Amino acid sequence: MADEVILLDFWASMFGIRVRIALAEKGVKYEYKEQDLFNKSPLLLRMNPVHKKIPVLIHNGKSVCESSIIVQYIDEVWKDKAPLLPYDPYQRAQARFWVDFIDKKMYDTSRKTWATKGEEQEAAKKEFIEVLKTLEGELGDKPFFGGDNFGYVDLCLIPYYCWFYSYETFGKFSVEAECPKFIAWVKRCLQRETVAKALPDEKKVFEFVSVLREKIRVE
Amino acid sequence: MADEVILLDFWASMFGIRVRIALAEKGVKYEYKEQDLFNKSPLLLRMNPVHKKIPVLIHNGKSVCESSIIVQYIDEVWKDKAPLLPYDPYQRAQARFWVDFIDKKMYDTSRKTWATKGEEQEAAKKEFIEVLKTLEGELGDKPFFGGDNFGYVDLCLIPYYCWFYSYETFGKFSVEAECPKFIAWVKRCLQRETVAKALPDEKKVFEFVSVLREKIRVE
Repeated sequence: MADEVILLDFWASMFGIRVRIALAEKGVKYEYKEQDLFNKSPLLLRMNPVHKKIPVLIHNGKSVCESSIIVQYIDEVWKDKAPLLPYDPYQRAQARFWVDFIDKKMYDTSRKTWATKGEEQEAAKKEFIEVLKTLEGELGDKPFFGGDNFGYVDLCLIPYYCWFYSYETFGKFSVEAECPKFIAWVKRCLQRETVAKALPDEKKVFEFVSVLREKIRVE
Repeated sequence: MADEVILLDFWASMFGIRVRIALAEKGVKYEYKEQDLFNKSPLLLRMNPVHKKIPVLIHNGKSVCESSIIVQYIDEVWKDKAPLLPYDPYQRAQARFWVDFIDKKMYDTSRKTWATKGEEQEAAKKEFIEVLKTLEGELGDKPFFGGDNFGYVDLCLIPYYCWFYSYETFGKFSVEAECPKFIAWVKRCLQRETVAKALPDEKKVFEFVSVLREKIRVE
């Protein structure tokens, strides 16, 4: 029986992009079902009743939720091609640690660079740069977080990049000026076809963020 | 070479207890180093420079941080005895999903049952019971979260139980009255020697929580 793989997703989601890159790395064919986040579908509510969030991977009728867990699932099911997590338990733990760090720090901090103003926004910009500098420190002189090859940490972090133009424009700062090594890493990732194809256009994300800002009345 | 295993921990930490149960399940001998959380040791700061938090497992000089990641590491390194995560990728993803749910919901909600008062405390009690009811729903009629055997989700959830007496006393409510199936699951877990030995006395935790409440001036 051929695998039936369905992805419930939203085009601009950094979490959804992780799953799209992972599926592309593994060469898995799937049906993409764009979701309306302001009017959630019965399918999404049924497949992720606890969090009611995208992305959801539906594999032969069974759902897997939470992007970092989905990526690990994909790596374990389609294990013969393009390994994403390292084999060594210590290296795996390190990779999980950094993805956990990204999940705990990047989203909330980066969101505040465009969704707040005044002192709160200034603090968020500072904290966001600190998060990136911590990640730069971990990257060190390696081409990718796991070493020579693109892997789990890179895959979970790079989707944020298509939002950087929005963070920088609304926050009035430059990531490259503060974290040039981080941007060098971004450029290495973008050379990878699976990444370049999965990341939406930053100007399109900017338009979306502009609409979000109006909805939450930032101005 | 024999493994050198050191655990930086704090006796009442539900996160540290996870690691102690996992090491006991695997029969791993280790050196326990109690940490002063109000005066962090140079060793802790060096071994977990990012979060500066216990627990930290130091295995042959290399540190692993974040309790759920440490437990997965232990399961992968000492893989021949007492498997904690299921073998099947889908079941593994489900186990990770529920541990992630516990990590996202249990700590903050349970803390507010004793660290806040008035309306905030009432809301926290309600939310805490909702979290437990969601977990009861997932447990269903199974003896343990993964099925017939004690596993990863049980191990990550049961350490909270030694704090329940404090939640209930300061919050003035009864978990058993609201969630009898949850408490039946607790009793099954407590029959396990690794669990019973790892959980500190609830009255001792209560004394500790009383001191914390004074520190943060809840009254």
